[in-house]
Amino acid sequence: MPRKGLLFVVSGPSGAGKGTLCQDLLRRRPGLRFSVSVTTRSPRVGEVDGVHYFFWSRERFLEAAGRGYFLEWAEVYGNYYGTPVAEVESALEAGSDVLLDLDIRGARQVKEKVPDAVLIFILPPSLEALHERISRRGTETEQERRLRLEAASGFLKAARDFDYIVLNDILEEAGRVLDAIITAERCRTSRQLHLIDELIRTGPSRGKEE
Amino acid sequence: MPRKGLLFVVSGPSGAGKGTLCQDLLRRRPGLRFSVSVTTRSPRVGEVDGVHYFFWSRERFLEAAGRGYFLEWAEVYGNYYGTPVAEVESALEAGSDVLLDLDIRGARQVKEKVPDAVLIFILPPSLEALHERISRRGTETEQERRLRLEAASGFLKAARDFDYIVLNDILEEAGRVLDAIITAERCRTSRQLHLIDELIRTGPSRGKEE
Repeated sequence: MPRKGLLFVVSGPSGAGKGTLCQDLLRRRPGLRFSVSVTTRSPRVGEVDGVHYFFWSRERFLEAAGRGYFLEWAEVYGNYYGTPVAEVESALEAGSDVLLDLDIRGARQVKEKVPDAVLIFILPPSLEALHERISRRGTETEQERRLRLEAASGFLKAARDFDYIVLNDILEEAGRVLDAIITAERCRTSRQLHLIDELIRTGPSRGKEE
Repeated sequence: MPRKGLLFVVSGPSGAGKGTLCQDLLRRRPGLRFSVSVTTRSPRVGEVDGVHYFFWSRERFLEAAGRGYFLEWAEVYGNYYGTPVAEVESALEAGSDVLLDLDIRGARQVKEKVPDAVLIFILPPSLEALHERISRRGTETEQERRLRLEAASGFLKAARDFDYIVLNDILEEAGRVLDAIITAERCRTSRQLHLIDELIRTGPSRGKEE
């Protein structure tokens, strides 16, 4: 029987560069399967149905959500996003590792349903990006500063639920680290005990013994 | 303050090739510190005191063991072997990762004293080597077969206490996996939370705030 695949979830605050990192990882590992999400938002220029997203109507999405079609789903800024569970499960059963790019809430939902999933938190190199969004409309006020710190402490809380934290300072380096995490996770003892069973089963005198 | 180093212990049954793998890993990672063991056995041709081992008398070894000089020590085939604790601790405190090449019993002793240590079990590609030692004196008898299976199931029990199991089938590949394990372990959440603290502390408006 082929080894069951592993589920890797890459997440983190927006601006951390997780989308770019996932693309980099898929280039490094052609065998890794990226699960395409379903969304109800309109396609942006250049986005292809079935490649970047499956673009569905709200009615179709909600009907599917109601019958458990999604591994996780959420409404973000008025649009729905979801991960089809069947695609992920069939790839894992076939022995392929699967990569998901999800927001923090989605990553948590997946971990609840798939405790064996490996959650990786991508950290931006600075709070600059977040800060810019918060204080876009003028000089920093006390309230803005407070919001920024609240958001930062929100990061901290979310990150604690993850298995790994990867600083996305230099893309090439962060990509190498993600690649190493996949290699290492495959060798964790709980996932390798079958190797020892095989060693025992296929000992040098198998022919004589059986 | 510099990040505290991590302790990696490579172990496994004899014949698994862990010595060669450790040398390969040290070539890949010049920053990794290899801890030289103390032994009471005689130097073999080409072995240099302080490089391959520290060669001590039995009296000196036992006196040192008595005053807690070793992180782990054991008697193997009538000779003593031990890992000096001071060298390991000072390297870790200075932020260097440290590599130990120990037998299974030694690895377990280290894990008891340093729960944060990462234990890696090296698996030989087949039971051939072990089998050869057991059945060296003739054709395989029922008793020999039993011994072989007992030893194999001993592997299984020992491996369960380790964090990782690496199959040493192709040296280059196993070396790459060990290297990836070190990279990944450094990114485990428990070891990365300081990054988030730093992000918060060194936000973009630090100058104005403090």
